[in-house]
Amino acid sequence: MDIKVTLNPNPKAKPTDTSALGFGQIFTDHMFRWTWNSEEGWHNPRIVPFENLSIHPASTVLHYGSEIFEGLKAYRRADGKVQMFRPIENIRRMNNSAERLCLPQMPEEDLMQALVEFVRLEQDWTPSDKGTSLYLRPFMFGNDESLGVHAVHNAEFIIIASPVGSYYKEGLNPVKIMIEDQDVRAVRGGTGYAKCGGNYAASNRAGERAEQQGYSQVLWLDGVERKYIEEVGAMNVMFKINGEIVTPKLTGSILPGITRKSCIEFLKSEGIEVSERLLSVEELAQAMTDGTLEEAWGCGTAAVISPIGELCYKDHKYIINNNEIGELSQHLYDSITGIQWGEVEDKFGWIVEV
Amino acid sequence: MDIKVTLNPNPKAKPTDTSALGFGQIFTDHMFRWTWNSEEGWHNPRIVPFENLSIHPASTVLHYGSEIFEGLKAYRRADGKVQMFRPIENIRRMNNSAERLCLPQMPEEDLMQALVEFVRLEQDWTPSDKGTSLYLRPFMFGNDESLGVHAVHNAEFIIIASPVGSYYKEGLNPVKIMIEDQDVRAVRGGTGYAKCGGNYAASNRAGERAEQQGYSQVLWLDGVERKYIEEVGAMNVMFKINGEIVTPKLTGSILPGITRKSCIEFLKSEGIEVSERLLSVEELAQAMTDGTLEEAWGCGTAAVISPIGELCYKDHKYIINNNEIGELSQHLYDSITGIQWGEVEDKFGWIVEV
Repeated sequence: MDIKVTLNPNPKAKPTDTSALGFGQIFTDHMFRWTWNSEEGWHNPRIVPFENLSIHPASTVLHYGSEIFEGLKAYRRADGKVQMFRPIENIRRMNNSAERLCLPQMPEEDLMQALVEFVRLEQDWTPSDKGTSLYLRPFMFGNDESLGVHAVHNAEFIIIASPVGSYYKEGLNPVKIMIEDQDVRAVRGGTGYAKCGGNYAASNRAGERAEQQGYSQVLWLDGVERKYIEEVGAMNVMFKINGEIVTPKLTGSILPGITRKSCIEFLKSEGIEVSERLLSVEELAQAMTDGTLEEAWGCGTAAVISPIGELCYKDHKYIINNNEIGELSQHLYDSITGIQWGEVEDKFGWIVEV
Repeated sequence: MDIKVTLNPNPKAKPTDTSALGFGQIFTDHMFRWTWNSEEGWHNPRIVPFENLSIHPASTVLHYGSEIFEGLKAYRRADGKVQMFRPIENIRRMNNSAERLCLPQMPEEDLMQALVEFVRLEQDWTPSDKGTSLYLRPFMFGNDESLGVHAVHNAEFIIIASPVGSYYKEGLNPVKIMIEDQDVRAVRGGTGYAKCGGNYAASNRAGERAEQQGYSQVLWLDGVERKYIEEVGAMNVMFKINGEIVTPKLTGSILPGITRKSCIEFLKSEGIEVSERLLSVEELAQAMTDGTLEEAWGCGTAAVISPIGELCYKDHKYIINNNEIGELSQHLYDSITGIQWGEVEDKFGWIVEV
């Protein structure tokens, strides 16, 4: 497709102190936009200056949660080139999310072209300090200008980009997690497997309560039996129990994470099988009690690997691996970030150079 | 509070053909706006010309479903005056929704003042033909301009208004409903009781599938056991089974509807008890089979009472009350709409004149 480019006549100064970047706070000079309606389909792909959106007060996105998104990163290699990690996975997941929310499908090759051309234009915004990257946020929303509840006839797709700091400025410190037994994030048959706004809106209250009690995030249990481990905060979760690597299987209420998938595939390439299965909180508590829980970590795009050092369940606090990062967690972190930043050979075909 | 008013210098012509109004398609000349941040709290209440909103591409509402709303109506009485129906109930529910989504609370009296002053200014937009009204849509959204997932520090509250046509231009025709056994709208512990975007986003796909098969809407089952009746489309649901009036009890995944509450209170005033209890789909199917299901109806702000004439469950089609509106459904419709439009005495204190 032919992407029309309108350059920003007033480019901003790029940040010099990457230690102050944080996450998703500042944005680059442009954004990619693409418009859809039920008559014309997707049309008018364009890169325009980054600016506020003009949205009708009755727009579907403001009332009925008609919104999906993705998150991925562009990384600067030592040779100065910029690359993305498994963008095709984000593209496919976005179409799956769209199907669940009755938003339009996007041709994979067009979306890939949009990502590559947009990142190429903005690549100078990719910082080069250790652990930093250019975070890419594709998102789509329903945009009918009326209040009826139905599948939309108008939608907008946008990509914005934000240079982000290192997740681990002070090293991979293990986090404290609280097992949530009141609020539910998602349920089988609902939207848990889709990356959509409603899942995050449902998560905030428990996250805030945990934070007030000194925890970083919550560990979610399934919405049906309130028994099986699902996710940690907005990340997938993995455990090493008595030598077995376990991660909750994708039952429909869990986000099919790309870092999760990469961990499984990477470990498999080293001859280590990951059990994707149901894991009850009782089994986990028992493993913590008898000392067979060797390691626990969250995995997601932002942190890659986030070691869990303490789990609180029903007011009982369990310390995992002496509150230190485990050997396997460290190995996964080093290997996957190595591929992402181009320091380790990509034997998997995961990297897309821009 | 002091609401600053900026009049629209270019007011639109009001619609003359109310039969073409539909629902939420055209909007009045103004909107009420109120801004919140964690430092100043709510500030700058104002009525301004209706126009598009300027929203940052990273705003919370576009990514994380941080949005709640209400729906209520202003009705024109025969004497020309305009009145609202139980607005305090909408105000309280909106604060409950806000709590679930970590959005800020609003003082009840300020919100009531905003509603009354706004409707007073726009009251000429309230149509007078039978069954027509001025639909009011208060909504609030999180508006941080960054991509971190957490409780917001900025929010916007807005009221827009839309003259709407009669829901029943051709009389109260019973609708065909399909019992949904795949998708789930909400689950206990989730956001089902809050009027928030995510619930509606989760509902669209099943609604579309039902429509393609010739049904108006779906009947939702609970997310845990997929067994108990919850809502119908975006309405609450009631049944008359062998003389007993039954409506699903508010377990946390069901919206506490104001029309639902009004039906219960009105019937109580006539000496008729409504059983708020669990009602399984098997019990309902049995009642349809043995002919003891006498009436079934949805209840909500848009339709008030929507009689159900046909229910499809597992490919079996059941006809209810000969596909005609039942006596009790008609009585409820006449009584509640009578109070809403000022034709029946309000013994309950439900009406607020503007």
